[in-house]
Amino acid sequence: MSLTLDPKAWFSESLMDTGIAFSLKTVKKLHEEQSPFQFIEIYETETFGTLMVIDGAIMLSDRDNFLYHEMMSHPVLFTHANPKRVLIIGGGDCGTLREVLKHPGVEKAQQVDIDERVTRLAEKYFPELCDANGDPRAELHFADGIKWVKEAADGSYDVIIIDSTDPVGPAEGLFTKAFYKDCFRSLAAGGYIVQQSESPLLHMHLIRDIYHALDDAGFRDIATLNFPQCVYPSGWWSATMACKDGPIAKFRREDAAKADLKTHYYTADIHQGALAIPPFFKQALYKD
Amino acid sequence: MSLTLDPKAWFSESLMDTGIAFSLKTVKKLHEEQSPFQFIEIYETETFGTLMVIDGAIMLSDRDNFLYHEMMSHPVLFTHANPKRVLIIGGGDCGTLREVLKHPGVEKAQQVDIDERVTRLAEKYFPELCDANGDPRAELHFADGIKWVKEAADGSYDVIIIDSTDPVGPAEGLFTKAFYKDCFRSLAAGGYIVQQSESPLLHMHLIRDIYHALDDAGFRDIATLNFPQCVYPSGWWSATMACKDGPIAKFRREDAAKADLKTHYYTADIHQGALAIPPFFKQALYKD
Repeated sequence: MSLTLDPKAWFSESLMDTGIAFSLKTVKKLHEEQSPFQFIEIYETETFGTLMVIDGAIMLSDRDNFLYHEMMSHPVLFTHANPKRVLIIGGGDCGTLREVLKHPGVEKAQQVDIDERVTRLAEKYFPELCDANGDPRAELHFADGIKWVKEAADGSYDVIIIDSTDPVGPAEGLFTKAFYKDCFRSLAAGGYIVQQSESPLLHMHLIRDIYHALDDAGFRDIATLNFPQCVYPSGWWSATMACKDGPIAKFRREDAAKADLKTHYYTADIHQGALAIPPFFKQALYKD
Repeated sequence: MSLTLDPKAWFSESLMDTGIAFSLKTVKKLHEEQSPFQFIEIYETETFGTLMVIDGAIMLSDRDNFLYHEMMSHPVLFTHANPKRVLIIGGGDCGTLREVLKHPGVEKAQQVDIDERVTRLAEKYFPELCDANGDPRAELHFADGIKWVKEAADGSYDVIIIDSTDPVGPAEGLFTKAFYKDCFRSLAAGGYIVQQSESPLLHMHLIRDIYHALDDAGFRDIATLNFPQCVYPSGWWSATMACKDGPIAKFRREDAAKADLKTHYYTADIHQGALAIPPFFKQALYKD
């Protein structure tokens, strides 16, 4: 009774030895190219709109990218007391940048992705994600994020968002103590970092590694947000947040509730709920 | 770059025209049979333990069934003021029953599944889900749930849990006004119903139908709980709850917090968070 998925009609992904695969029915392949950094494919799917795939891993679809982009941006921005200078490492599809720029208090948002082709293809195939790229507060840089943060002036950012691919290949260095130390140094007092941190069901070992690396880099209080993300393995994803100094603050709930962000998923209640940590997660985190 | 999933090595599911498929890598098929009601398969998977499939749809895996079973039981039981008499329609794998029986106040829990074979196979292949079947408060009946509720005495239950398969095939009648009317009549004052209600991302039309059918049956206040469930389509699932009379109460948060239920996912904070409804959900619910 197992279905046969014709690879001509379905895009299927199974990565990192999870023993699971996720597939989307495709209408046609719209584009493919080998950039200097990675192999990028764009598909039209039957039910999820346009799909971007990098090195065989699904990056985003029209239908459900709002979940990830909203949860990578609004929780951390409503946790910082008054974020003005935001750095996004990765995030070449510009979806996180768009959400960040919905916050009127943000004065500058720099997006630093190593691969300009991701952004150029997003402009063509995901134009709605790029509709804030012309905002005078937005700066798009195509450079190595690790080098960028290494060279950043001390205390030059309020919030750093690591909107990276999986911790294999080009993004591997974005999950290390050395990189987090540079982030720590680049953050101003009261600054926050947030890192996409994979699936709570599948990747607790990676989440634990991220906690240890952040801790080793000097971050003292660490918290994870959980949210659904259909096109990523297991359909359940997370973002892990840490404060440069002192414990992670209660988020600015009233500001979140009264902000008119035109979100599809994020609300103050969703934010609060995303911080609830299940027992299995705590056990896995502290088992060694 | 699309992966080819050999159907000899992977179990793949794609149902209800969602345009997505989910696959688990299998080690071997442990069992298959045509019961009088449905085709049941049991697989050993590489990373998700034992897997049960009914009519081509994944029912449960060892690895992640705790999410669904805990969220189908504890939220509704901590919302009712003092649940003593619980009816489970469907739920033949006994996982929901086990969670229900963790509540010491429950005096009787009846499980009514049409297909005895599901329970017999669960006893063999998912023994940990059946470890409360010998509890003197547990009653296992193998009968038509629709008929059972039709013949139930007025006001004979405090909580009715509809732990059904998808609303196609044998379970279709469990999503109708006629069935909900019988549930309404069978509930005592202050009684609650909860129904598994598919994926918020994929099935908002079904969730809307459930709201309308519950409303038509006399239920006046309706709320949905959201939770992750990797092996179900989109990895994001829901349960919809309604109270026989009056608005849905705030749940007994202190009782939930101090109960020692040995859950892996459910906590009072998770419960609160699961009630947070995203904007897109509200819009889809009330758009007509």
